[in-house]
Amino acid sequence: MFEQREKTELANLGEFGLIKHLTQHIKLNQKSTVKGVGDDAAVLDFGNKKTLVSTDMLLEGIHFDLAFTPLKHLGYKAIQVNLSDIYAMNGTASQVTVSIGLSSKFPLEAVEELYEGMLLACKKYQVDLIGGDTTSSKQGLVISVTSIGYAEEKNICYRNGAEEGDLICVSGDLGGAYVGLQLLEREKQVFLSNPNIQPDLEGKDYIVERQLKPEARIDIVDLLAKLEIKPTSMIDVSDGLASEILHITSQSKKGCKIYEEKIPLDPMTVDTAREFGLDPTVCALSGGEDYELLFTIKQADYDKMKHDVDISIIGYITEESAGNYLITKSGNIHELKAQGWNAFKSTTA
Amino acid sequence: MFEQREKTELANLGEFGLIKHLTQHIKLNQKSTVKGVGDDAAVLDFGNKKTLVSTDMLLEGIHFDLAFTPLKHLGYKAIQVNLSDIYAMNGTASQVTVSIGLSSKFPLEAVEELYEGMLLACKKYQVDLIGGDTTSSKQGLVISVTSIGYAEEKNICYRNGAEEGDLICVSGDLGGAYVGLQLLEREKQVFLSNPNIQPDLEGKDYIVERQLKPEARIDIVDLLAKLEIKPTSMIDVSDGLASEILHITSQSKKGCKIYEEKIPLDPMTVDTAREFGLDPTVCALSGGEDYELLFTIKQADYDKMKHDVDISIIGYITEESAGNYLITKSGNIHELKAQGWNAFKSTTA
Repeated sequence: MFEQREKTELANLGEFGLIKHLTQHIKLNQKSTVKGVGDDAAVLDFGNKKTLVSTDMLLEGIHFDLAFTPLKHLGYKAIQVNLSDIYAMNGTASQVTVSIGLSSKFPLEAVEELYEGMLLACKKYQVDLIGGDTTSSKQGLVISVTSIGYAEEKNICYRNGAEEGDLICVSGDLGGAYVGLQLLEREKQVFLSNPNIQPDLEGKDYIVERQLKPEARIDIVDLLAKLEIKPTSMIDVSDGLASEILHITSQSKKGCKIYEEKIPLDPMTVDTAREFGLDPTVCALSGGEDYELLFTIKQADYDKMKHDVDISIIGYITEESAGNYLITKSGNIHELKAQGWNAFKSTTA
Repeated sequence: MFEQREKTELANLGEFGLIKHLTQHIKLNQKSTVKGVGDDAAVLDFGNKKTLVSTDMLLEGIHFDLAFTPLKHLGYKAIQVNLSDIYAMNGTASQVTVSIGLSSKFPLEAVEELYEGMLLACKKYQVDLIGGDTTSSKQGLVISVTSIGYAEEKNICYRNGAEEGDLICVSGDLGGAYVGLQLLEREKQVFLSNPNIQPDLEGKDYIVERQLKPEARIDIVDLLAKLEIKPTSMIDVSDGLASEILHITSQSKKGCKIYEEKIPLDPMTVDTAREFGLDPTVCALSGGEDYELLFTIKQADYDKMKHDVDISIIGYITEESAGNYLITKSGNIHELKAQGWNAFKSTTA
């Protein structure tokens, strides 16, 4: 967890030396990348398709804790989080830019690890790293990623296209990333109070990975294309199911009903949530960081995907005046509220 | 300088509330903007032109000092700095995304001021603000901007196209931003040692503005088009003349000779540099942040622009083996070195 490695000081390399060092292994694969790193701007060519652009910022102490986040995982996740937004438009991601703010006490080897994780994600998701900015930071580590992609105009899924009667679908399972974070924070506290005790994460691989190394769901975008389903609306689950569904209904000027029993939860998420005295459903609704895709489809498309076990239908779209409600397992009705992670109130430490 | 204003706490607004509040006045003007803020990604359409992308990160304590940087100016500058990179490709900037990390103690009014400056720059330079990310920061203010633009393929100017015999040109004047910074830092120290002494910047407007409110040189890009000159290479002056010219010669596999007496300096820059015991030429070579355009042109194009007073010809490109040299006013020859601002060694504040 806190192993010792050889260290090279960044100050000896300088900004240009560091950029050269880090970017020497970048390979460009995308036809649309005309020019990558090395000039004032990258040059792209999307022909007649629409270009998609999304950006996210990750700050130490807010979005990640270096005490339990391996840098390689962090780099990987920083890219994923961003690609997920392009996939949530039903698009194909093709390029990313990466800006990093580093403490000058950060050794080169640490930056290399971070970059290694980023390049691994780029390779896996077939996107080109085309540029960025590297600077020193007086405080913590800062990572800002912008992703670029494309789509045929007719295939783009906005948040505002849901219609009354549409089915609400979500990929994978929810709440795991949040419960995984609780576990990592508990083990950090144990470690801080007694550094001789090694973290006990045995048998919890799945939820720890959900937190540290989420995978953006390009496979769902591909599956939908194969099934010839165009969602009427789509969004990725970064802030929690409740918050995301309310984005869709408010932008579509509709309401919704979702069913607690239909929300997909992994057994490990359920068990571990209970260990922490948390309601697993609340973890799914408000936990966030699952990076699954939430989307609505026409009822007529139901037959095409009813056999797909990795997509759950959790409710349906209603008229706006009917409001947004969760029907609990016991049949109670609760108004859905966005209690998602509020970046200005609760922060991880 | 440190006036008191009404304050609204960000925590009461929440992330979505803040985004909604800040983005409500954004107007989209670019034909290429299909969808701006409000979905997972923005959607752009560049038809058959090439798309240009550039990104920069500004960190408090490294790139700016809030003690003497008005937030509106900071917002304005953050956009400029980025657009400058698109212009340095001989392109047209069309969109920007903005990610901001804010301390939760930052009042809403301060964020509004920052945003106001950004939107003012967007309006002036006719670019659309199409998205971004807003999050809390445990440390200082963090701003990351990505700009997007376009150009016809035949018009794009890379750094690597300079040929032997080409003339080296630079717009405007150099060194002013750096000398302006020295002035602001001195007045900050005076203020800190005695808060009753008001800053004495009288008569220094030009160089203070060069530091606080630089203007990206879209007018030079337009002028070159009007004169039917396509530079053989181009870069913007962010790190200092020496560093930028070495980017051009190393990427073009050429050398250069530049003449000290030809480097454009404003009289105020010269006088104030001397007040500080600085060599004005060194301020131009290594100061940075001038955001002028440095470019090379074929000798045959000289006649087209010899009457333009806002462009100076400062030297010429040589073969690579001849090296990179500065000829001083006294006729001495110095090897050019990139002593530009090293983000990992010297930092402001």
